Amino acid sequence: MKLYGFFRSSAAFRTRIALNLKGLSYDQAPINLRANEQRGGDYLKVNAMGIVPTLIDGEVAIGQSLAIVEYLDETHPQPPLLPKLPADRARVRAIAMDIACEIHPVNNLRIRRYLLHELGQDERALELWMNHWTKLGFDGIEPMLADDKRTGDFCHGDTPSIADICLVPGVFNARIYPSFDMTPYPNIRRIFDNCMKLDAFQRALPERQPDAV
Amino acid sequence: MKLYGFFRSSAAFRTRIALNLKGLSYDQAPINLRANEQRGGDYLKVNAMGIVPTLIDGEVAIGQSLAIVEYLDETHPQPPLLPKLPADRARVRAIAMDIACEIHPVNNLRIRRYLLHELGQDERALELWMNHWTKLGFDGIEPMLADDKRTGDFCHGDTPSIADICLVPGVFNARIYPSFDMTPYPNIRRIFDNCMKLDAFQRALPERQPDAV
Repeated sequence: MKLYGFFRSSAAFRTRIALNLKGLSYDQAPINLRANEQRGGDYLKVNAMGIVPTLIDGEVAIGQSLAIVEYLDETHPQPPLLPKLPADRARVRAIAMDIACEIHPVNNLRIRRYLLHELGQDERALELWMNHWTKLGFDGIEPMLADDKRTGDFCHGDTPSIADICLVPGVFNARIYPSFDMTPYPNIRRIFDNCMKLDAFQRALPERQPDAV
Repeated sequence: MKLYGFFRSSAAFRTRIALNLKGLSYDQAPINLRANEQRGGDYLKVNAMGIVPTLIDGEVAIGQSLAIVEYLDETHPQPPLLPKLPADRARVRAIAMDIACEIHPVNNLRIRRYLLHELGQDERALELWMNHWTKLGFDGIEPMLADDKRTGDFCHGDTPSIADICLVPGVFNARIYPSFDMTPYPNIRRIFDNCMKLDAFQRALPERQPDAV
């Protein structure tokens, strides 16, 4: 398998964690988002949306990190990244999407660039923007973890799931600005720390990727 | 079942379509986003993120529209909203998420409000913002539909899937500003028209909901 990604992309980060948890080996094809390589002609043939990551598995090309993780879970069921019961699967997917659909899309590089260049905002406005959306999201996720007996060492039970795969890159993004206060989120912090004890998460870290600068 | 939603919410719109396609009856509990009822104390007990929709099915409460649709597909398999093969399921999920994770989160009401009130942008800047992100997304989705033999009357084959469930509200949002040019998207338009021939989509329309004003 081959993964088109970028060391700093939090969506690519998710898929690296999933591949590692599944024990799958893969080649990396770096797409430098800072140099706009995702909009270059060649990569648009791989991913018409011009976003990373894209997973190539033989003839199959898949964009969208959560579609990739679900695909990996269906094609390589062990260890499972989703629980068995529909209600539990829905809980895990909802936590994952609270990050992947509410926080991350609003705070990613292309949005920050638009705010800076098209809307003439400054770095301070960017910082307030990012912290605002992260806080709204974490303020929702923390009680979902705190108030549900299904929360364990990880977001759901004692093994990592799609929710943790999204949570860890989400915490990395939250920490971009030291002004973001993580103290109101003891469960998020605890689960993040548990994830970071695992080799699958460690090996997926941005700074450990071949394109890290 | 009970669905907390808002007639204008495109995420709630998705879940109404899915419930209708499954032939499920449900009660509606309107949460007026314009009046900020989603941040009111009572609703935060139902949905800690303070977003719509939330589906209540007995003891189960699920936020996030795509988690709800997957749950409905797992608990009520007929008619299926995802194809059978993992590669096809990944394609359908990726198209759905291209809308639900790339276009919609950036253009929804709370973002538009922040741009207006916190960043002092005007209506014209909002229009350019929304059209920009919709165009980027549709520019990616159109070739994914045009260049893949699996595209049929709908995004994937000849029956509606999760992708179509996201596409239709996405087209409604694209049309908010008449300045958005739909002509470069013949496949998106064709599939939208096919969806709108179905009663399940018609009955889910914003203006046909009990809270429509």
